[in-house]
Amino acid sequence: MNSQIDIEVSEVGPRDGLQSIKAIMPTEDKKKWVSALAAAGLPEIEVGSFVHPKIFPQLADTAEIVKHARSISGLQVAVLVPNLKGAQMAVEAGAHKITIPLSCSEEHSIANVNRTHAQMYDETRAIAELINAQPAEDRPKFEGGLSTAFGCTIVGEVPEEKVVEVAENLMECGCAEVGISDTTGYANPATTKSLIRKVRAAVGEDACTGIHIHNTRGLGLANALAALEEGLTTIDSSMGGIGGCPAAPGASGNIVTEDLVFMLDSMGLKTGIDLDKLMNVRDLVKASLPGEPLYGFTPDAGIPKGYKPFAGAL
Amino acid sequence: MNSQIDIEVSEVGPRDGLQSIKAIMPTEDKKKWVSALAAAGLPEIEVGSFVHPKIFPQLADTAEIVKHARSISGLQVAVLVPNLKGAQMAVEAGAHKITIPLSCSEEHSIANVNRTHAQMYDETRAIAELINAQPAEDRPKFEGGLSTAFGCTIVGEVPEEKVVEVAENLMECGCAEVGISDTTGYANPATTKSLIRKVRAAVGEDACTGIHIHNTRGLGLANALAALEEGLTTIDSSMGGIGGCPAAPGASGNIVTEDLVFMLDSMGLKTGIDLDKLMNVRDLVKASLPGEPLYGFTPDAGIPKGYKPFAGAL
Repeated sequence: MNSQIDIEVSEVGPRDGLQSIKAIMPTEDKKKWVSALAAAGLPEIEVGSFVHPKIFPQLADTAEIVKHARSISGLQVAVLVPNLKGAQMAVEAGAHKITIPLSCSEEHSIANVNRTHAQMYDETRAIAELINAQPAEDRPKFEGGLSTAFGCTIVGEVPEEKVVEVAENLMECGCAEVGISDTTGYANPATTKSLIRKVRAAVGEDACTGIHIHNTRGLGLANALAALEEGLTTIDSSMGGIGGCPAAPGASGNIVTEDLVFMLDSMGLKTGIDLDKLMNVRDLVKASLPGEPLYGFTPDAGIPKGYKPFAGAL
Repeated sequence: MNSQIDIEVSEVGPRDGLQSIKAIMPTEDKKKWVSALAAAGLPEIEVGSFVHPKIFPQLADTAEIVKHARSISGLQVAVLVPNLKGAQMAVEAGAHKITIPLSCSEEHSIANVNRTHAQMYDETRAIAELINAQPAEDRPKFEGGLSTAFGCTIVGEVPEEKVVEVAENLMECGCAEVGISDTTGYANPATTKSLIRKVRAAVGEDACTGIHIHNTRGLGLANALAALEEGLTTIDSSMGGIGGCPAAPGASGNIVTEDLVFMLDSMGLKTGIDLDKLMNVRDLVKASLPGEPLYGFTPDAGIPKGYKPFAGAL
């Protein structure tokens, strides 16, 4: 991570946001969006996913977006891959970071991608082999995503011990790190802290630094605060919370980048992101996705009068 | 506070919520609402404000609501009063808790209620005298509300030292306690913690146990978590976040009771509130205020499958 910042906000809108809506953002608009986010100071952007375009036609141009994003100096370019084939495409395109999501609930994994945990571990090992075969200077970072880590919509509870077991297995399969993901929005600040502690105790603090949070029950920023307090330094979020369910504003979607960055910045934590520039990037998304609701409280309320980030000790 | 609960959620919808909307809830509906909230387990409800009905016609029936609420066993009945006259009416009606809000920003106080701090302190002393003249068994609790404690829309920054000074003065004027209020939604978790520490250091922990939080910039529940971590035990919230600005869902309104209670309950903190019953009370508000938007994520998303409150150590 850039040594000039305290907390790395990883923008996942171009992947998690766009895959959740019907509209397809034109490739040129995606490039402009990624460029504008990077210009606002976002240090990492998950620009797409190498899944079959039949599943997510919205992300069919991921290779082209990766290539464009790589041309932006200093930007860490992240992608999601479901399998070895996706990883090959990601490596070829030149992604800096590759994440394979694995549902800690095996029932969810089978229902969702028709794979058992054992099959997913095989895939993970194959990807690790591919990555390790790359020249050191081009080698992407390889992350295992601990999906449904706080519970699953099929079986309900996912025991902490199961998440820890999956984390350990992913590390053994060759991941460099694991990221905790509240796919279903079941987390609360207490379970967030507890699980982070257990996973970090198992795999080491350096191998678990990030979390992916949904705002399904409105607890997203409280959970982000809990994660910060446990020492995590990377938090995923999505501009405008794109992909949230229209029936329930913001629900089921990612936490909103604008509100997260305002929270971090106002607490005096350095994100490297310019708040005003960030707010302006919304116009680009609005113009490209007419009719698609954009969420977020800070963009509507504006920055407080006489705004100064907190300068005391946290 | 009831010894069976860890955190007291103080419902302010019938006061702060209703005063912020144009529609006037019929008196009988208010009574049903208060009864239903109490039946769901809310330990304290701010049922109204003794202001001139020209200012808030929505709250003109506060005396009648207080009398009704007092008939509900175990419920702490709270009201707001702007001055001695309001306090006289509150005492006469039989409120258990009387809060006088004082804007820590003197410019805001002058602009809003046309009173200097010195004038407000005089009023506070007069109210304390009135309250102390009541028989001990009927004496309401007297709280000073530290409004605009995190910043003001007129002058911007409100220094922590000013808030501490106002808190000390209110205690000297005869308040039994002070409550911190983020009237403008300027707070963040860092300033929340810092200010709570300073006010409690000045007036004593027992004299500062509650906070009133707005969700203007989406940080409401994160700020609530910060307050909990500092040891506060009473948090204000409003059912459905009523009164939030329709242009910016939830903005400028109170934090949503349903989401707050879900957060606390899921963390394993006892609130005495039945989550399902609480959610059902919304129907009553919807029916009484047709067209008025109700906010909240948890009511839309529902309780997680296999839901169990966190059982570990916080």
